[in-house]
Amino acid sequence: MNILIIGGGGVVGQKLGRALAARGTLRGQDISKITLADVVDPAPITGNVAIETTTCDITDPASVARCVTADVDVIYLLAAIVSAHAEEDFDAGMSINLIGTLNVLNRARELGTKPVVVFSSSIAVYGGEVPDPIIDHTFLNPQTSYGTQKAMGEMLINDFSRKGYIDGRGFRLPTISVRPGKPNRAASSFMSSILREPLNGQEAICPVDEDFPHYYLSPRKCVENLVKGAELEEADLGQNRCMMMPGRMWTIRQLIDAMTAVAGPEPAKLIRWEAEPDIQAIVKGWRFDLRPEKALKLGLTADESFEDNIRYYLEDDQPSA
Amino acid sequence: MNILIIGGGGVVGQKLGRALAARGTLRGQDISKITLADVVDPAPITGNVAIETTTCDITDPASVARCVTADVDVIYLLAAIVSAHAEEDFDAGMSINLIGTLNVLNRARELGTKPVVVFSSSIAVYGGEVPDPIIDHTFLNPQTSYGTQKAMGEMLINDFSRKGYIDGRGFRLPTISVRPGKPNRAASSFMSSILREPLNGQEAICPVDEDFPHYYLSPRKCVENLVKGAELEEADLGQNRCMMMPGRMWTIRQLIDAMTAVAGPEPAKLIRWEAEPDIQAIVKGWRFDLRPEKALKLGLTADESFEDNIRYYLEDDQPSA
Repeated sequence: MNILIIGGGGVVGQKLGRALAARGTLRGQDISKITLADVVDPAPITGNVAIETTTCDITDPASVARCVTADVDVIYLLAAIVSAHAEEDFDAGMSINLIGTLNVLNRARELGTKPVVVFSSSIAVYGGEVPDPIIDHTFLNPQTSYGTQKAMGEMLINDFSRKGYIDGRGFRLPTISVRPGKPNRAASSFMSSILREPLNGQEAICPVDEDFPHYYLSPRKCVENLVKGAELEEADLGQNRCMMMPGRMWTIRQLIDAMTAVAGPEPAKLIRWEAEPDIQAIVKGWRFDLRPEKALKLGLTADESFEDNIRYYLEDDQPSA
Repeated sequence: MNILIIGGGGVVGQKLGRALAARGTLRGQDISKITLADVVDPAPITGNVAIETTTCDITDPASVARCVTADVDVIYLLAAIVSAHAEEDFDAGMSINLIGTLNVLNRARELGTKPVVVFSSSIAVYGGEVPDPIIDHTFLNPQTSYGTQKAMGEMLINDFSRKGYIDGRGFRLPTISVRPGKPNRAASSFMSSILREPLNGQEAICPVDEDFPHYYLSPRKCVENLVKGAELEEADLGQNRCMMMPGRMWTIRQLIDAMTAVAGPEPAKLIRWEAEPDIQAIVKGWRFDLRPEKALKLGLTADESFEDNIRYYLEDDQPSA
């Protein structure tokens, strides 16, 4: 089982690589190699299987051809320009999120090896006038270019699979929190930093009100679901291979209360409240009342409580003091 | 008002050009010029306004740039590789239906003139496991590459409009019947030829059973709706600028009975019934229980009866004997 993680330098890609290496098997077979590919050479990881890192620019078909080879059994396609970045730089979003995805799928088709392709979509595909709750058959009506590009990626995953060029499956990731590392250019970046920075003794800014509701998943559960996602049987996926990844709805207040329950009252005092209209304009269009029935039926899971999300961060990611 | 019809050599493009020329106005302004563009130079049409024909290969950005110029106010984007053709030739479908659409929209964005863009999508965007009836917020789950490419085109129309690059609107065309001219490579081609050929005294083959239900619109009504579609106010389109174009559901038997009611019993005798599994595999995935509420509310209309469709063909299109 030879696994390629495109976007292997990102937070989820790195964690997925480590989880797969520790696991040693996927789809009932021993993992022979894991390759982490990203636009800059990903940080190396260690494990019980052969691990390589490589650079891959998915906007360049030649670079994709070097990286996506006939011996690859499973491709995780996690690389993306995130929401606020794609909103600011339309060309970058189109070339990486849309054309980049198309380049990877075209290469897989060219090889004729029908690899499993696990595509990370996003709940940013939802929005607009579509009524709540969001169910499995809800119309995708993204209100950002990022969401649009992800929705188009889903269409490609479905059609390339229907044609037999790939065995694709896509998952609309909830907002991942608590995300380790530094803030990024996702509009959702604050949804981790208002927890992560205070847990590390640093100030953070919350740009929305405390009653702002959103839909979350921990990185640990996300990785579990991505592993499970690769293992699903093709026959169980049906005629739409893209689905919500389960998460849970919490308000900002609930996130902070969970942090206080796990780590005491001090971190919450480090949050500064400063409304940011640009961020609000994006995130208030996002949906939070999601009912991921198909994914739950297929065995994907959400976190039990946001206290768990906090604990996972402390166990998996908190920099040692 | 300078109008460009891309796909102006096709049946709908030609009829639209003639209707606009006869009308003389669009969006409350006099039409100064109509340009029919297609991959081969379209048949010239006559009218009371300046009419030009030109070639445009939408897969080539340079060709698009020559055709889509800053003085164009309204672009009709009707060019497409049709369903069975796109299913046979995946590359052609992707390059014309997806990349071609993207080339036109990128060019409009580059110009900065925010033209009105009227995009012809298709009810082939529906399918899969999505429950009936199809309503305005039903998930697009195409089961053909053509439907996939049209659904992706809709996503682009929405996002380019949201960003202010174009004033886009898209309409999911029902199957157009009675379509004049020769059979084409659409899987739905027989849905016109079983009427058109017998009305012209020729045999035709029906590849499905007489109880096969489908969703139809006459060319005359389609053109009326495309004119109306360009005239809709941007503010009335909402956050999803693509919608069903109204049609009506009829069975093959009802089509034939309507033909008999209008033209007597002889034509129906010229229909030969020969099941064609390849055609059936495509068309049986299409949906017919559609409820185009948004479009009806905005003033688009369907035919009153299929007898009307037959009469329109005889009035508008039947070759003189």
